[in-house]
Amino acid sequence: MGLLSKVISQSAGMAVAARCYGSSGLVAQKWIYAKAFKGEPTAQNFRLENEELPALKDGEFLAQAEYISVDPYMRPYMMAYPEGSLMIGGQVGKVLESKNSAFPVGASIFGQFGWRTHTVCNPAGSKQNERPYVLPDFGTLPTSLGLGVLGMPGNTAYFGLLELCAPKQGETVVVSGAAGAVGSLVGQIAKLKGCTAVGIAGSDTKCQWMKQIGFDETINYKTDNIYTELKKKAPKGVDVYFDNVGGKTSEAVLKLMNLYGRVAVCGTISNYNTDIEKVADPLRQMVFKQLKMEGFVVWRWNDRWMEGIKANLEWIKEGKLQWHETVTQGFENVPVAFMDMLKGGNTGKAVVKI
Amino acid sequence: MGLLSKVISQSAGMAVAARCYGSSGLVAQKWIYAKAFKGEPTAQNFRLENEELPALKDGEFLAQAEYISVDPYMRPYMMAYPEGSLMIGGQVGKVLESKNSAFPVGASIFGQFGWRTHTVCNPAGSKQNERPYVLPDFGTLPTSLGLGVLGMPGNTAYFGLLELCAPKQGETVVVSGAAGAVGSLVGQIAKLKGCTAVGIAGSDTKCQWMKQIGFDETINYKTDNIYTELKKKAPKGVDVYFDNVGGKTSEAVLKLMNLYGRVAVCGTISNYNTDIEKVADPLRQMVFKQLKMEGFVVWRWNDRWMEGIKANLEWIKEGKLQWHETVTQGFENVPVAFMDMLKGGNTGKAVVKI
Repeated sequence: MGLLSKVISQSAGMAVAARCYGSSGLVAQKWIYAKAFKGEPTAQNFRLENEELPALKDGEFLAQAEYISVDPYMRPYMMAYPEGSLMIGGQVGKVLESKNSAFPVGASIFGQFGWRTHTVCNPAGSKQNERPYVLPDFGTLPTSLGLGVLGMPGNTAYFGLLELCAPKQGETVVVSGAAGAVGSLVGQIAKLKGCTAVGIAGSDTKCQWMKQIGFDETINYKTDNIYTELKKKAPKGVDVYFDNVGGKTSEAVLKLMNLYGRVAVCGTISNYNTDIEKVADPLRQMVFKQLKMEGFVVWRWNDRWMEGIKANLEWIKEGKLQWHETVTQGFENVPVAFMDMLKGGNTGKAVVKI
Repeated sequence: MGLLSKVISQSAGMAVAARCYGSSGLVAQKWIYAKAFKGEPTAQNFRLENEELPALKDGEFLAQAEYISVDPYMRPYMMAYPEGSLMIGGQVGKVLESKNSAFPVGASIFGQFGWRTHTVCNPAGSKQNERPYVLPDFGTLPTSLGLGVLGMPGNTAYFGLLELCAPKQGETVVVSGAAGAVGSLVGQIAKLKGCTAVGIAGSDTKCQWMKQIGFDETINYKTDNIYTELKKKAPKGVDVYFDNVGGKTSEAVLKLMNLYGRVAVCGTISNYNTDIEKVADPLRQMVFKQLKMEGFVVWRWNDRWMEGIKANLEWIKEGKLQWHETVTQGFENVPVAFMDMLKGGNTGKAVVKI
């Protein structure tokens, strides 16, 4: 392939030159979990390394990352990995070389390859829920959406809301983390189902954008009292709560749930960087309001993956579902993009263009 | 009817004589919610009153209480009633007079008549989930079981465990409040489904009894560290948690749940007499363990009521389900029985024989 790239890492204060010589002797760059997270991640938690890739064997292909995803789940998930592990995560890339006919050269693919520029992958050797796949035809839409509305976050919103919460016309749906990759879609899908959508987010700018994409009401948790505001903005109470945040936000929303309310617990970003906080025991109101609360990870719908992507794609084509990306440039900046996303710096999906 | 009864109230420090002259002019006794609960109920929360009953109209019947139920739910539920209301609750009684062919004289019935000795009832005027019913044939078993294993608590255990938790053979089921009316049945039904049953209760005597009726392991929460003990006694983790208690007990159990664990939240007796306590936000582990947690009130299975009673009756006849009652004597002692039950004084179902 003979391509030569020079990448200057800015995030970790290091200068790294990577030379890629083709898959025989090609050198990938990768971000390593150098030091276990404690509190807010800093540059010291990450280390850039090179890795010489082997020549392809039968069944394998070589992918080059085009977009790398940074997602909240990486913060708690990495805690299960030893220091020195590759940073986990999904990416959208192009097949550069292939000895696997299902992944032909030039194909755009999604893979859970972690934070790395180049990957030699044998799909048969991947765990079932980590198998790479060729992206469906997105038409004129950017392939980066395969990390967002047409990928994991899109399916999280689609299946999490529809399968676990079964929102009915006329119901009130509250979403926390509502300006994020998942939350912004949940509110819009709730509207498509005839519900009233109330979104909670962390800035007036985010709240304005949420109104633009269809939320009926918004709450800025940094300046508003969530309980008081929600009581006004959801006067009929809350039938469905799609939670990305946990902690005090959820404590307030749970107090306003209606009988037989449903709660999908998608994430608890408010406490990923901290010890788990103390909140009012939610169990008593769960009994008398007969609430159902379910935590989930989207891979449980792995066998229906393309159904979710196609539904969201259809809505986008019909102009019914809007998406937004916060794009950071350069592989060297993946940690920066990750840290910024954890602080709420993104609107919509946070991705890194490689 | 000409029956004459004289009842001396011992619990509230009052002496009350009640004379019953037949349904025309018959005087019922009833316990009134005299003062709103604040903290632990005391005798001052209750007041005994008389009520002259009218003659029966078409469609009505007159019932005399034989057993009155005291249950944990009464503590939080009464908070929604104004002072001066009748204390709520179920009773098993006999039909003394009837102008309703579905409730013939002499029939044993269950009714949600509250804490009162005699009641004139028009079933057509009752809310759907509060309709009285004639007890099924219990054979030689006491009718008081219509308040326990063959009534509301029995159905709570039966439907709550089987419908919400779907316990599978070989799984570990943990029950809090395990020596109580509901918990003691949940553990036994879990065993009937091939599970390992671990019960948490508040005395060694209760724990010994729980072992006798089939629990594999027990934990005395007053003397043991629940988390440490449960880690030993449920070495494969917890698949199902049937919770009657809430608070710190649930905080400990939730930490040991397995992937796709199910939690039925039946009650939270630990905080009925107190402000809701602060616990570690359970949402984070709900996400990553994909837990399902559902609060419920048994009336949601009202249309399958007799199915539950018949299943439990069948198990009793086969010697597979054991029951125990803590019986207090005398209508004057209903408040005492109630207060004692809230302190954990009962093993199995707490009832008052009138």
